[in-house]
Parts: sequence; C-alpha cells; structure tokens
Amino acid sequence: MVGVTPWFAAIGGEVVMARDGQAKARISWREDLIGDPKTGVIHGGVITSLLDQLCGAAVMSALNQPLPIATLDLRIDYLKPAAKGMAIVGEAECLKVTHEIAFVRGSAHNEADQEVIALCTAAFMLTRPEARTA
Amino acid sequence: MVGVTPWFAAIGGEVVMARDGQAKARISWREDLIGDPKTGVIHGGVITSLLDQLCGAAVMSALNQPLPIATLDLRIDYLKPAAKGMAIVGEAECLKVTHEIAFVRGSAHNEADQEVIALCTAAFMLTRPEARTA
Amino acid sequence: MVGVTPWFAAIGGEVVMARDGQAKARISWREDLIGDPKTGVIHGGVITSLLDQLCGAAVMSALNQPLPIATLDLRIDYLKPAAKGMAIVGEAECLKVTHEIAFVRGSAHNEADQEVIALCTAAFMLTRPEARTA
Amino acid sequence: MVGVTPWFAAIGGEVVMARDGQAKARISWREDLIGDPKTGVIHGGVITSLLDQLCGAAVMSALNQPLPIATLDLRIDYLKPAAKGMAIVGEAECLKVTHEIAFVRGSAHNEADQEVIALCTAAFMLTRPEARTA
Repeated sequence: MVGVTPWFAAIGGEVVMARDGQAKARISWREDLIGDPKTGVIHGGVITSLLDQLCGAAVMSALNQPLPIATLDLRIDYLKPAAKGMAIVGEAECLKVTHEIAFVRGSAHNEADQEVIALCTAAFMLTRPEARTA
Repeated sequence: MVGVTPWFAAIGGEVVMARDGQAKARISWREDLIGDPKTGVIHGGVITSLLDQLCGAAVMSALNQPLPIATLDLRIDYLKPAAKGMAIVGEAECLKVTHEIAFVRGSAHNEADQEVIALCTAAFMLTRPEARTA
Repeated sequence: MVGVTPWFAAIGGEVVMARDGQAKARISWREDLIGDPKTGVIHGGVITSLLDQLCGAAVMSALNQPLPIATLDLRIDYLKPAAKGMAIVGEAECLKVTHEIAFVRGSAHNEADQEVIALCTAAFMLTRPEARTA
Repeated sequence: MVGVTPWFAAIGGEVVMARDGQAKARISWREDLIGDPKTGVIHGGVITSLLDQLCGAAVMSALNQPLPIATLDLRIDYLKPAAKGMAIVGEAECLKVTHEIAFVRGSAHNEADQEVIALCTAAFMLTRPEARTA
C-alpha cells in the first residue's frame, strides 16, 4: 500500500515488502522507460524513482505511527547500467529515526543476475503532530 | 535533440536549450506524474528525472565533440513541493570538464512563480575514444 | 565570531564575513594540512572542514535569532587539487530556511588564481525552542 | 602505510586495517578537535577527514596494483554527535572498481558504545598509466 502513488504505478513499479525499517521494490523493464535507445537500458530517472519510493517505504515502515514524510535530499551512485530487458529490484533500510529526520540507505540490482546497479543514501523529513502547531 | 530519450519524452519533458555548458528544460504538470494524490504535487522522481536529463544536456553542450556520457552520481535537495498544476522548469550549468569527468549544478523551479523547488549537483563520466581502447 | 571553534582555529581557518545568509571563510596553506606529501596539496578533509564551517556560518547569518544548528548531511565535489602554498577561500549562500531545515551551497577556490577547487551542498537541522519541548 | 599523510597524522588518526577492499581507521578524542566548546563533541570536519581517508584506504586495498587516486565527491550524513571523550572508529568497503572510478561506502561510530555517528558514500577517480598518455 505504501508505494501506490500514481507516478510509481504509472511506470510499473511496486513496493513488494515494507516492515520494521526494511523495504523491497521492483520495476519491470518496459520500452517507454528506456534512457538510451541504442542500448535499451532503462533511464537513470526510473532507477532514482524506484530508490526514492523504496526509501520512503522503508522510513514509513520504521515509524510507530503513520506520519507525513518528505524526501529532504538523496544521493544516487550509478555503478553500472541496468541490463536490457531485465526487471530491477531494490532494497532499502532505514538506519536512524530522530524526532524530525530519518536516514536511509538502499541499492538497486538486476533481478536476474543480482549485479548492483545503483546505491542510494537519503534523508527524509518527518512531520509530527506537535511540530505542526509550532 | 539532446533530450529526446523515450523516457523523458514519455513523461512529457523537453530540453528547450543547451549551449556552451548551459541548459534549460521544462516539464508540464500531468495527472500521471503525481506523487501524492492528496496534494496533487508531482513525484520527486519526476523532478529528479528532469534534473538528471538537464544536467546531461548541459554536459553535452560543454563538450567540443559529442561523446558518450553517463551519470556517475547525483545529489538532489528538495527545498519545497512543486505547485499543483504548474509546469516545472530547470536550469543547469556544467562547471568543469576534465578528461574523464564533468561536474554540473542545476535547479528546478515552478514556472509560474519562480520558487525554487530543488537543487542538484552531479558528476558525469565521459567516454573518450582513446580511453575505450585501454 | 561564528567560526571560532577550537577545531577550525586549530587548523588556522577563519570566517571573515557572515551576513544575510552569505558567508566567506579563509584558510592559509600550512605544512601540517598537507594530504599528499609528493605534491604538497592540502588534504580534502581540510577543504571539507572549511566548507562545513562556512556553510554553518551562512545558515547562522540567515536566521532571525541565534539557534543551535547541526550539519545533517553534506556533499563535496572536488573539482581540482588545491594549489601548493596558496591560501584557500570559500563562499557560501543559504538558499532556503524552513522551520527545521536550512539548505546551503558553497564553493572553495585558490585565493591567488580564483580557480574553483570544490563545490558543496549541505542541509542543516535547526533546533527551535518550541521543538525541543516536543 | 596507506593512511600516513601529514594531515591525518596531525589530527591523530590512523588506518588500522586495509585489505581486499575493506578498511578500518581510528581517531582518538582530543581537545583541539572539538567543534562545539559547550558539548565537547568532535567537529564534523574531523569525522569527514576520517571517512575520506578511510574510503581512500579501502579503494587502494581493492586495486591489483598501486594507482594514484583522488576523491571525486563524497556525501556525509551525520546521524548523531560523537560522544565526548570517546575515540571514533570507522569502517569502509569498496563496492565497485571500474576502469576509472571506484565507489565506496563507510560509516563511523563511537568506539565504546558502537553507536553509528555518520554514514559516507564516495566516488574516487583512478589514474591508470594508459589513461595518462591519452
């Protein structure tokens, strides 16, 4: 349920697990997600979207109560291009939750060969009820 | 021409200018790009895609000859949510080109009110002909 | 006054200006700051320290009242090595202050030739009085 | 041997292990490394220096032959302040080495209580002999 935003659904992504600060997501290869027509590899923006959504899901699953969260910043490292025609899966872990901030790390890899494609580190802002009245 | 990848076209984005290391891009608001159904604001992944494409265009326009480039890493800072129903425009500048790496900075803002939505810093890898034989 | 921490003083750095969200800092070349004995260039950690301190000073100067701040995260891009024997100066600008977060961008360059050495983007957390009681 | 630069030695740091892409480093608490006189916690710049040096050591230890390396960019996330009076230890792992770039991840924690203080992701540039002649 965590990952069902119109955008992420539109590109065919789904969050397959999110529990206790750990999350997994998956996106199938599709022609309209291609970044480079010559190679057929998926656009970096798709992988970033996957990681962003996934990290958010990990944060949500680490909270004791549902809270509005927002990506504050994220860094993506692209280790290698995604393989043509292959689904991409991602995993993320929420490493720390403070009153206002949560820190997450994640990675994406080709589903078939388990090769790591990208790394991600992100900080999310949490909006707690008491803070909103300040 | 720089920005015509299937992915970026599919989400309705276009690079409107790229010259001498400077580039501009634009993306219209669309329902299928929404990240949060309650607010109607565009998904962070769309803004990241815009900035990634835009930074690549700035790098390409800074080169003396066309070269294959790849995003090595990028950092996005989300300063505020995009406004609902408003187009987003972005600007990027390539600040440095070395033999193998190019550094870029960019930002995205609401077209109507010029409010800055996001900042971006990225490094791209350049694949020069002589390096490929090594 | 903003920059007078024991650490920054110990490495010979000083914040020379901080006003309205803009700040400048300077550090002289010194033998004990060298990162690579073969070239005599200053260690990246020194430049990072300069940029971190500088960004904090820019944030402080953007606030209406003094508040405890803490670096949440920062990204440094090293564009080229610092020149041997040359002082390094840095400039930073606080681009956005929200209730809990401030965003800053900065850069460092050789004092003598104005060549940009490094770029920096950072997020700082602000601790406002009302938030502390939550 | 990897970590013996004048700078890192001057602040009392040492790389205690570096093998097969894994590295560990340590730095003792010292008064002149304090960032905030009120709390006695070590300056973020010191932790960044530790992580930068450590990541470089992990990269060096992952190479088949010694090569000149340079930090291209790094991102630090500060999860919590270092404990006063406590040594800080760090661990890093080189996750990928391509022809020109190496990617590393690391973390720093209080030696006594194992609490994670900071995370780090970095990219290093490798200068291979054949590339230099290009």
